[in-house]
Amino acid sequence: MSKGEVTRQRIIEEAAPLFNQRGFAGCSIQDVMDATGLEKGALYRHFSSKEELAVAAFLYATTRSTRTRTEGLDEIEGTVDRLRCLVRRFVETPSVMPGGCPLMNTAIDCDDGNPTLRRLALDGIQAWKGRIARIVEEGIERGEVRRQVEPRRIANTIVATLEGALMVSRLEGNKVALQDAGVSLDGMLDGLRCGEHR
Amino acid sequence: MSKGEVTRQRIIEEAAPLFNQRGFAGCSIQDVMDATGLEKGALYRHFSSKEELAVAAFLYATTRSTRTRTEGLDEIEGTVDRLRCLVRRFVETPSVMPGGCPLMNTAIDCDDGNPTLRRLALDGIQAWKGRIARIVEEGIERGEVRRQVEPRRIANTIVATLEGALMVSRLEGNKVALQDAGVSLDGMLDGLRCGEHR
Repeated sequence: MSKGEVTRQRIIEEAAPLFNQRGFAGCSIQDVMDATGLEKGALYRHFSSKEELAVAAFLYATTRSTRTRTEGLDEIEGTVDRLRCLVRRFVETPSVMPGGCPLMNTAIDCDDGNPTLRRLALDGIQAWKGRIARIVEEGIERGEVRRQVEPRRIANTIVATLEGALMVSRLEGNKVALQDAGVSLDGMLDGLRCGEHR
Repeated sequence: MSKGEVTRQRIIEEAAPLFNQRGFAGCSIQDVMDATGLEKGALYRHFSSKEELAVAAFLYATTRSTRTRTEGLDEIEGTVDRLRCLVRRFVETPSVMPGGCPLMNTAIDCDDGNPTLRRLALDGIQAWKGRIARIVEEGIERGEVRRQVEPRRIANTIVATLEGALMVSRLEGNKVALQDAGVSLDGMLDGLRCGEHR
């Protein structure tokens, strides 16, 4: 990386937790200047606007979250075990970024706000749901999951329950809500199995 | 109500959707002035600070949401039917306030922000969870729900799943995620029944 690229990357890494914690409206360019020790002119050499910086910070944050949530999942044999692992992973490490899940934060922060960030949050949620639905579909094809199960419903339920539980856990300052959600999701996932795989 | 009280109430009702949609940092006193047509001096005659106004707006919003979510539930016979009704009510009318659920919005907006609003969101979530847990406890006492069921887990799962599904539904601009979450929760709730109540 050139010196300019190194600086750009450093700005993104320092700005990502700020935007994640404070939201687009709540994080000012001054906040980023304070965190990076850079002047306004230096920031605007790398990003044409606060939105462009927020977009780069969001993509950096979600790429890191997604990696933590899904890395190595493909190696787990058995559809239900793979889904249970995905749930456990989230319960144990819901977010690697200070401020909680960047997808949920941006979704809530921008649902009546910045349309570009809102669109990116939607893409992120749909990509995550898509990955879960495909695991369920494969399970049906392999005969491990009952044919009546709707992959989309399972994906929506897992994403909604985990994200909602993270919100409650962060508010309460402990992991109880996440752990309770994990137990309930495990119960639902066990119910997906075909008779011979029970 | 005196003329002053009427004005105060009108300010709260006009400010509540603004704070709910834009968040504490994203909603300025200027926004409230624009919405109400009042001068800054008039607003500060009724509220000593933006925080005091935001607190009143939050309490107004959550009181309305809670009423919609729980009104008439006590009249429903049968624990599982009552819980299913609570879920259906949320799926059909997740929020009466523009901007989505004020509890979730404030929880996400203020988890690294305003501590007074954060505390109120925590109180609101815990009150809601408490009501659900008590319904489950009563069901266990009445012999309608299996003794092994943990009321706290059911409360955490219902609140997390509904709030998370609302986030996804608002982002996607349709009710599919909420409806899917409702079906999954119904499945979990049916599993709570004692043998003789199945």
